Amino acid sequence: MFEIKAKDGLGRIGKLSIGKKKVETPTLMPVINPNKIVIAPKDMSDYGAEMLITNSYIIYRTPQLREAALEKGVHKMLNFDGVIETDSGSFQMAAYGDIEINNKEILQFQKDIGVDIGTFLDIPTHPDENHRKTLSDLEITLERAREAFEFDLNLNGTIQGGTHLDLRKKSAEEMSKLPFTVNPIGGVVPLMMEYRFSELVDIILTVKGSLSPSRPVHLFGAGHPMLLSLSVLLGCDLFDSAAYVLYAQDSRYLTSYGTKKLNEMKYLPCNCPVCRKYTAQELINENDQKRLELLSSHNLYATFEELKIIKEAIHEGTLFELVETRIRGHPRLLLAYRRLKDHYDILEEYDPFTKRSSIFYTGEESNLRPIVKRTKDRIKDIKSKKYDSHLFFGTFPKELEFTYPFGQCEMEEERRDKGDLELKDEDIVKVIADYQFGANVGEKLFHDVVVKRSKTGMIRYVFDKNGTMLATIRARDGLFTPNIEGLKRLRDIIPYPRHRIIIDDEAAPFIKDGANVFSKFVLSLDNKLRAYEEVLIVDSKDNLLGTGTLMLSPREVKAFERGMAVKTRWGIEKNTTPENQIEE
Amino acid sequence: MFEIKAKDGLGRIGKLSIGKKKVETPTLMPVINPNKIVIAPKDMSDYGAEMLITNSYIIYRTPQLREAALEKGVHKMLNFDGVIETDSGSFQMAAYGDIEINNKEILQFQKDIGVDIGTFLDIPTHPDENHRKTLSDLEITLERAREAFEFDLNLNGTIQGGTHLDLRKKSAEEMSKLPFTVNPIGGVVPLMMEYRFSELVDIILTVKGSLSPSRPVHLFGAGHPMLLSLSVLLGCDLFDSAAYVLYAQDSRYLTSYGTKKLNEMKYLPCNCPVCRKYTAQELINENDQKRLELLSSHNLYATFEELKIIKEAIHEGTLFELVETRIRGHPRLLLAYRRLKDHYDILEEYDPFTKRSSIFYTGEESNLRPIVKRTKDRIKDIKSKKYDSHLFFGTFPKELEFTYPFGQCEMEEERRDKGDLELKDEDIVKVIADYQFGANVGEKLFHDVVVKRSKTGMIRYVFDKNGTMLATIRARDGLFTPNIEGLKRLRDIIPYPRHRIIIDDEAAPFIKDGANVFSKFVLSLDNKLRAYEEVLIVDSKDNLLGTGTLMLSPREVKAFERGMAVKTRWGIEKNTTPENQIEE
Repeated sequence: MFEIKAKDGLGRIGKLSIGKKKVETPTLMPVINPNKIVIAPKDMSDYGAEMLITNSYIIYRTPQLREAALEKGVHKMLNFDGVIETDSGSFQMAAYGDIEINNKEILQFQKDIGVDIGTFLDIPTHPDENHRKTLSDLEITLERAREAFEFDLNLNGTIQGGTHLDLRKKSAEEMSKLPFTVNPIGGVVPLMMEYRFSELVDIILTVKGSLSPSRPVHLFGAGHPMLLSLSVLLGCDLFDSAAYVLYAQDSRYLTSYGTKKLNEMKYLPCNCPVCRKYTAQELINENDQKRLELLSSHNLYATFEELKIIKEAIHEGTLFELVETRIRGHPRLLLAYRRLKDHYDILEEYDPFTKRSSIFYTGEESNLRPIVKRTKDRIKDIKSKKYDSHLFFGTFPKELEFTYPFGQCEMEEERRDKGDLELKDEDIVKVIADYQFGANVGEKLFHDVVVKRSKTGMIRYVFDKNGTMLATIRARDGLFTPNIEGLKRLRDIIPYPRHRIIIDDEAAPFIKDGANVFSKFVLSLDNKLRAYEEVLIVDSKDNLLGTGTLMLSPREVKAFERGMAVKTRWGIEKNTTPENQIEE
Repeated sequence: MFEIKAKDGLGRIGKLSIGKKKVETPTLMPVINPNKIVIAPKDMSDYGAEMLITNSYIIYRTPQLREAALEKGVHKMLNFDGVIETDSGSFQMAAYGDIEINNKEILQFQKDIGVDIGTFLDIPTHPDENHRKTLSDLEITLERAREAFEFDLNLNGTIQGGTHLDLRKKSAEEMSKLPFTVNPIGGVVPLMMEYRFSELVDIILTVKGSLSPSRPVHLFGAGHPMLLSLSVLLGCDLFDSAAYVLYAQDSRYLTSYGTKKLNEMKYLPCNCPVCRKYTAQELINENDQKRLELLSSHNLYATFEELKIIKEAIHEGTLFELVETRIRGHPRLLLAYRRLKDHYDILEEYDPFTKRSSIFYTGEESNLRPIVKRTKDRIKDIKSKKYDSHLFFGTFPKELEFTYPFGQCEMEEERRDKGDLELKDEDIVKVIADYQFGANVGEKLFHDVVVKRSKTGMIRYVFDKNGTMLATIRARDGLFTPNIEGLKRLRDIIPYPRHRIIIDDEAAPFIKDGANVFSKFVLSLDNKLRAYEEVLIVDSKDNLLGTGTLMLSPREVKAFERGMAVKTRWGIEKNTTPENQIEE
């Protein structure tokens, strides 16, 4: 079971539950080779690992391991009580030809040794394989996927299709129909090894476009910290990698901005326990085994540090900024980022409408963020009394100068003419309402109103002529949160079902009392809404229940069986006092 | 005494010697407020601090501290045996008006308490002060600078002049004439607080243009990790900052990509001992004093981590790449970086000719690196049989496709047509020689030669028709290192004093035997040479002594009394066998 806790771009902080075990995503599963353990599984939680991956086929074909795993279970054998995922031998099959076990046998074996998430024997097709062969491989994979469900096991449904995007799409669609726990994107290791990141972007976003958003996506074989933030931005949740050991074997030192050769280093530019204790020269002078252990340890620390940086960026709403920094680590990453221009629709659909942090311009690549075109589109039909110019968004209604994203944009130069505020407050709030709720809403919503400013001179409250508060403007992003009278007006002005989320009548009484809206109670919602946007909560007859913040994109609301869809600000029967709503 | 160990841009890894104490630069001096110690000076070496700064005026005016310092000396009082620098009360004077001590008194006091580097009572002028007042302040500063030398004390000669670049220049020129140990750039704190980084760039580069390059430069009041890499690239060596404590007092968390508010954080994205032990919420929940200590500790770890990253980048020759990543942390940093276009000459003069690492393109800002224009200028007069096109450098002689920087440039896309090598090897080596030693040198140097390729198919050796080796091509950068016969030809072909460093005849016998060339034995050198370029070593009568790598820019060679000017490859009487020269 998977839930979304926070969003940015297509990235998300999620909670994956496997029985009673819980894993916070995005995360990385260190690969454990049970024949050659460098960092003990029991020590993995020190690094931040909640989940690891090992290979069921290696266990199966190694008599000692097989016996131990069948007798004690894989958790006791490895001495790790977190989530253990296993691969099936697909990689060995692809690398060395036939293997000595079939799909059902390896599934049964995974079940028998008690893995938390197993993998069927899919066929990883090489990226440069032709369409015909890739398709025939994919058909075998899909057949094997279907037969995997006779075993009562949480399963990986690996999406194949090489670099043929139509086949990736087909694969994602078929996999969505089957009840997989996780959907890895497979067959991409050769692309990553050859720095073919642009093709990787196309594959990930094609898959994301056709796969149910409720599925955690595992980018199979990805674990270099340099690649993590971009992959998370595109919607990947899980990573695995033997990189921490494989690079260490080759005396290579991982950083979030690239790989370094230890023998060429003079300083260890990191605060992890290894790099604080050793100099580069001391590491070089260690014996091979000790150096392998120490470098593996650093590599794993560096990887989990990057995951913390990424999660903090999602929490702040600065994931695009982080990725636009990381892409400077390699020209091929920069190029891959530029592929975003061909994937605007899906990026726009998932990217939240407002974010916790200011927008930082990092260079011309910042124009690729979906917020640029979305914002331009959104102001197209809005009439303004006065226009201003903005480096990101071009000509825009000056009434929006303090509204997200116009007023929360750290551009290179000071832009705003602060002394020149001839606009009437009533005109300003009308345009903000148009921007937030649709062209021409403002005129009806705020006809004949009284606007009040805060002590700092910012517009904060809108009252009707009788002194009833209609809405307040949130300081953080200059957007409205409606009060009860404003909400009623909005319901009457905005034609059904725009700006609404429609709730099962059974749940209505709870929402009216202020309960949050969970996905499973949602009958439908306006597809044009975006995550973190203010939404009208209504029942099946368009009766108002309350208002709140939509926590997911519409497609996510529909796909998730679990988790919060709307964080209810207030229910119509428990409307809090206006004072309580002022500070957010 | 100051020596340069490695260079990149105007940045340098240096060794500052104060008596027997040695400090590796770039480094940061944590500011110790002797009345309010948060992290004990004795613990500072755990963070990597070799030097700290405290305020002699605060000690002077606090009776208890004054007595202790006069009795035990400042090192015992603070319990720190590294280098202690003191400020003079200038800042207090600027902030609060008059102070109760004059220039000579505070200098005498610093001498009496045994500081390693003292500071006279300069006048920090506010950046927005007018020219007339700034000049009159500067004149007082310069007068006080002159009277500082009656005390036998290593001294800071702080360069003032506000944002008036002519006054900064004058200040730097005057300070160069006086025997200061360190030259801080003062009066820039308000610029940094207001994110006026573009003006900071202009000031630093103006000062660097007029100050002797042998002086370590201290950017007074700079210590935010976000700003360090750019400042080092521009030639700053020392930083100080109370930021680690001041930001912590305000519950702010420093990173190399910006400042975060602890109360808004969910993850602590760092591997330092504090962030590995605590969650964000646990830090928030601590009492004020404990949180101050822990956050100060993190802030200091983060700062010294950034310094290690910077030093490693200088070592690798990737400082521009690092800075171009860091400038994405704030739009004002990006804008400041774009100021480099107005300072090409000084950047070009100091930036090495060849580097250890490949060049990474990070976005359009990469075109600001001096190597772009330098390389275009350098190929202007070179005749080629075939041209190719390069994203950085435009049309270029295809003969140079494996020579630095053409062949060591990681561009976005694969550029090179590898299958199309119609050029004759003899033509290729001639053009490389033209590029390295000047137009038309190749034809004379490599007339009628035999070229040999390595097993991997790369051009490696050039012999004359009798089989005598003239030169080898270094695999790393595709540039020539001459053998003895080649060196003789070069001396005859290239008119004196081009491409030469001219050594005192007394030192000649040692150089001939292969000794390295130290700055103090250099009579003069070709100003067009660049650091890390191959150079002909000759005596005063142009007799050949040997060949080697110039370690400094010409202006640095002339300014330094100490340190290596040329790493001698071989002396003419101890020419190593060609085989020994092949691998570098």
